[in-house]
Amino acid sequence: MMELVEAHESFGGVQEVWRTKSLTLDCDTTIGVYTPPLAKIGQKCPVVFWLSGLTCTEQNFITKAGAQKAASELGLIIVAPDTSPRGEHVPNDDAYDMGQGAGFYLNATQEPWVRNYRMYDYIVNELPALVESHFDAASAVRCISGHSMGGHGALMIALKNPGLFRSASAFSPIVAPSKVPWGQKAFTSYLGDDLSLWAEYDTVELIRAGLNPSLPMLIDQGTRDDFLEEQLQTQRLAEVVGDRPIEIRMQEGYDHSYYFIASFIEDHLKWHAEQMKKPQA
Amino acid sequence: MMELVEAHESFGGVQEVWRTKSLTLDCDTTIGVYTPPLAKIGQKCPVVFWLSGLTCTEQNFITKAGAQKAASELGLIIVAPDTSPRGEHVPNDDAYDMGQGAGFYLNATQEPWVRNYRMYDYIVNELPALVESHFDAASAVRCISGHSMGGHGALMIALKNPGLFRSASAFSPIVAPSKVPWGQKAFTSYLGDDLSLWAEYDTVELIRAGLNPSLPMLIDQGTRDDFLEEQLQTQRLAEVVGDRPIEIRMQEGYDHSYYFIASFIEDHLKWHAEQMKKPQA
Repeated sequence: MMELVEAHESFGGVQEVWRTKSLTLDCDTTIGVYTPPLAKIGQKCPVVFWLSGLTCTEQNFITKAGAQKAASELGLIIVAPDTSPRGEHVPNDDAYDMGQGAGFYLNATQEPWVRNYRMYDYIVNELPALVESHFDAASAVRCISGHSMGGHGALMIALKNPGLFRSASAFSPIVAPSKVPWGQKAFTSYLGDDLSLWAEYDTVELIRAGLNPSLPMLIDQGTRDDFLEEQLQTQRLAEVVGDRPIEIRMQEGYDHSYYFIASFIEDHLKWHAEQMKKPQA
Repeated sequence: MMELVEAHESFGGVQEVWRTKSLTLDCDTTIGVYTPPLAKIGQKCPVVFWLSGLTCTEQNFITKAGAQKAASELGLIIVAPDTSPRGEHVPNDDAYDMGQGAGFYLNATQEPWVRNYRMYDYIVNELPALVESHFDAASAVRCISGHSMGGHGALMIALKNPGLFRSASAFSPIVAPSKVPWGQKAFTSYLGDDLSLWAEYDTVELIRAGLNPSLPMLIDQGTRDDFLEEQLQTQRLAEVVGDRPIEIRMQEGYDHSYYFIASFIEDHLKWHAEQMKKPQA
């Protein structure tokens, strides 16, 4: 059962928010869906999945990123899920960087998180199937992007699932969660002490291990981002790029906010649209 | 004393929020200011004043309208003040449509509002002077726009002050506050029962009285706006347009939200930029 929570005309298309029961997360969850005008005339559209950062719901991206204009022009659907399971029965934590609002796009192996905290499976399996059955989505023409914790999710999930996404991009991503305080705190609580399990959710480690070597990746990172030095450490990604098709752009003066995302989201959507047009091997 | 509260790089320019003590409002007030990249190289830029609607602060417009991209390209400064006086010592009301967040851009004549509720004088006198002394604003090259209650403010203030603004536009404006519940409630409380005083703050009445007949005006109104029939009544404006340079566009399917504003703000900014380029009589 899909329940329509909001619908707003936007750049000739429509920005909706849907609520549905997720079997994977074992809770109700919300999903922002922008459908471009092309879909109104029956055309199936490529899908951009957007993963948001710590503390966010689907609202942050759909109200602040200004992505609808470019999505309208390029004929892209944008799917923006919540960042974690939610609800009174879902375990939580008082900290902003644990529990609800901080799912880290992984499958938890430690209690009390095991039952609900399965954002990895949700994004990889349940969400794409739901999108392709309920919206005017082209079959299997997908890309993924995200911000901060969601940048970690986008890059990591695309690396681990060759063929699922044609391209992956990120704004201010946590590229090496195993090495930084946000990631170490979350991974310890959700995954326990097994560092080999941490490596399975760590973009830098996945690249080092050679996964999905032809995946096109685009990363934008602001030079005035307060989290750059301690939590993001973009240079750790730069060090392992090798000859992969990965572009990392340091954007002078930009910070960690949605003002940064808004300034470059059109670039990212155009880039993804190009990647999704390329013939598949 | 101007205190910088926030600053974010945005489309090559900078989105700032300033706090300052307003002598007119007798309280501290915040102001969103977007400065385009042109100003960084010393050019003085035309200024768009944006007045927001009920319940809003400066944050709604600067985070949700997506106006920075067009302002960056067109070389416009955008100044978005708060919608009312604020603070513990400022009279308030529990309703969302009275008191703080609901200043209606007038000078109150009734208690307890008289001391602080002087948004009309603030927008007409204090704010333009402050902007031209603190930012890279061209001298007296101004236009004004707004949404809902702020659309009322923009049109009404521009009509009453020929020469102050080169052009006025609005999204979903309250065009006839004297005739609709929001306006009647606010005017009764702020202004008392003197209907001749109400008429001085009523766009339709000001046009009927012949004020500022050459003022270019552009109005966008969504056809699916839940407030259209009862509170906005755009047809009352259409009835008095006559041969004035006023364009009213009914936008099919759009509602009262910032998704509507975001969809057409670029149009408005381009239109204002054209108006401000015209030689002055």
